[in-house]
Amino acid sequence: MVTVQEAFRIVQSVTGKPGVEEVDIVTSTGRVLAESIYADRDFPPFNRVAMDGIAVQADKFKTRGQVFPIEDIQAAGSPPLILKDQNNCIEVMTGSVLPKNTNAVIRYEDLEIKDGKAKILVEKIERGMNIHPQSQDAKQGEVLLMAGKKISAAEVALLASIGKKSVYVFAFPRTAVVSSGDELVEIDEVPELHQIRKSNSYTLQAAMKEMGWKSESFHLTDDKELVKKNLRTILEIDDVLILSGGVSKGKFDFIPEALEELGIKKLFHQVSQRPGKPFWFGASADKTKIVFALPGNPVSTFLCFHKYIKPWIMNCFGVSSKHITARLAADVIFAPPLTYFLQVRTELKDGMLLAHPKGGGGSGDFANLKDVDGFLELPLEKSAFNAGEAYPLISFRSIV
Amino acid sequence: MVTVQEAFRIVQSVTGKPGVEEVDIVTSTGRVLAESIYADRDFPPFNRVAMDGIAVQADKFKTRGQVFPIEDIQAAGSPPLILKDQNNCIEVMTGSVLPKNTNAVIRYEDLEIKDGKAKILVEKIERGMNIHPQSQDAKQGEVLLMAGKKISAAEVALLASIGKKSVYVFAFPRTAVVSSGDELVEIDEVPELHQIRKSNSYTLQAAMKEMGWKSESFHLTDDKELVKKNLRTILEIDDVLILSGGVSKGKFDFIPEALEELGIKKLFHQVSQRPGKPFWFGASADKTKIVFALPGNPVSTFLCFHKYIKPWIMNCFGVSSKHITARLAADVIFAPPLTYFLQVRTELKDGMLLAHPKGGGGSGDFANLKDVDGFLELPLEKSAFNAGEAYPLISFRSIV
Repeated sequence: MVTVQEAFRIVQSVTGKPGVEEVDIVTSTGRVLAESIYADRDFPPFNRVAMDGIAVQADKFKTRGQVFPIEDIQAAGSPPLILKDQNNCIEVMTGSVLPKNTNAVIRYEDLEIKDGKAKILVEKIERGMNIHPQSQDAKQGEVLLMAGKKISAAEVALLASIGKKSVYVFAFPRTAVVSSGDELVEIDEVPELHQIRKSNSYTLQAAMKEMGWKSESFHLTDDKELVKKNLRTILEIDDVLILSGGVSKGKFDFIPEALEELGIKKLFHQVSQRPGKPFWFGASADKTKIVFALPGNPVSTFLCFHKYIKPWIMNCFGVSSKHITARLAADVIFAPPLTYFLQVRTELKDGMLLAHPKGGGGSGDFANLKDVDGFLELPLEKSAFNAGEAYPLISFRSIV
Repeated sequence: MVTVQEAFRIVQSVTGKPGVEEVDIVTSTGRVLAESIYADRDFPPFNRVAMDGIAVQADKFKTRGQVFPIEDIQAAGSPPLILKDQNNCIEVMTGSVLPKNTNAVIRYEDLEIKDGKAKILVEKIERGMNIHPQSQDAKQGEVLLMAGKKISAAEVALLASIGKKSVYVFAFPRTAVVSSGDELVEIDEVPELHQIRKSNSYTLQAAMKEMGWKSESFHLTDDKELVKKNLRTILEIDDVLILSGGVSKGKFDFIPEALEELGIKKLFHQVSQRPGKPFWFGASADKTKIVFALPGNPVSTFLCFHKYIKPWIMNCFGVSSKHITARLAADVIFAPPLTYFLQVRTELKDGMLLAHPKGGGGSGDFANLKDVDGFLELPLEKSAFNAGEAYPLISFRSIV
């Protein structure tokens, strides 16, 4: 048995070199950049007018009420005009190039325009006002985004602006989600009284799909020879196996044995945690085949995916997981010498992230998860946890 | 001009009745349930063994060291066995039905098994121990999930367990994303010096796609008759239009006029906010056509989408938006009588959500967004904002 910290460290240490694939930028959010992105030009590429109004030569302004005849109109998308007479002005539109020989923009709100003339209604004009200077945001050739950056819609804005319609991101490894246990039936079947539907494969696949991670799904029956035969077939094709069930101490739990016989070396079995104690983790000698064998009960599977596997895949892509904490909203006692992943509902109040404990004693009690946003990680060294103390949070629902 | 509060209220008040569609549960995360979900059986459906070990009749246990001969093995997925002699025990596997005539499970860890007999190594046995009682999580017929619930992988677990392979969710309205401005070129073109690529459509479509919201994309050129003609065509097909650009006070900004001529009544134009002041919002008299006309600069578009449109669509689905706050990590001065959406990087530290201001003065300065996680909403009534004060946060990046 290893501690949660040891298990986490061992899992994170097994990272292969991920492949890359090209995806359309519109569907790239959540993925991780596999290439660095450079500015193909200055941003903005020109001195950009930031307000509708007039452009003038600031030095020519003396006093409020001064009038500048309008020479021309500078539309967005047109090459820059040239102000011929510096006592005149040019009307300018937001987004347009600042006309040559001008260096300040005065907003319509600060003007009175009549008969082709603009009267200034403010006391002071500063050089550069209402102008977004060329290259202020980025210089041509500058790195805009580094490989290893997780893409959000904000990054899509940048990618589009430099002309990328598609982008290289890290590819997820070929992955199999494998359930086991003869008590499980397909979800569209009506189970006998002693049977239940196999929900874990769907839960895992949904959690993975949210990240863009596709997988195949298999089921193993409780027969040692068949388990081994099927695992061999799966391992020939897939590089990552996420199993649920068949790793506790039960008479019919052949999976760890079968995996070892297939050359998957155990890196740990059993973690001093609740839920999820029977978690088994292993890899082939060359670390090209990685097996997460999770306990079969739904809450354990769910916790282990979010605590170990999600940070692991992100780590493979060079993204280190954020360490976030929340504060216990009520006292909790947990005596067993295990790290306790307490089911909590979170609330952001006055900038404070509060974690409200929500029942969920039994680790099979997954009906509870619908009222819960995450797990608060209560360390094994302690058994009394007080309201107001901050502990790591493993969240599976967006806080915002 | 309206305040941010008025604009928000007006936008949220225009909600139509959304349609529904059926989606596969694996791709349902992020969507909103359009049907309530009931337990088709008790959860668990039987008294479920929660640990591998033996099942006994608790009353028959007298003292540590007592030996119970093993009658049989109860596998998961098999109908319940019956303990014939109450001085015996049955070996049981996690997930199996509790055998009849037994009422407690003792874990392997607390046993010594030899020659078909189990010796008890603990002092005390309690009725019901290591058993997950029938219907503890939910009773048959009970509502498990209400319509209007946003689906995460946790809800997928429940949906799968009651046999739902697909589920009804609210459908997004037919939506067009429409850019405008003659300074814009396609993103795969090389812009002239005075031109820029049209990134806004991609940013919006990426932000929408993350929620499962698909849209068509159009571009309008700066010509009043063409603008009107194209908007008419789009309005014939799409019910929601998200425009960017063409709503400020510029000479070439025909869009509000064209929209009003097409029967889209202005509900507000201009919001006392920075960025995003020129925001225009309108709807047809019967509220079946809704138009968000956002300012064209990328940061304004981005802010308005997250502040107004995302809560609006969720509100249409019956999901009220979470009101979250973060604490300013540094003093900020902002004098204009506008609500200021300050670009911030967030950090969760000891359960406190801190918002670090990150440059980004100009509202066109979107290269800055890559280092930013959201906008802190600083009210217009104040101009000095102190470190430690909590303000609403509009986040566009997952905090966890």
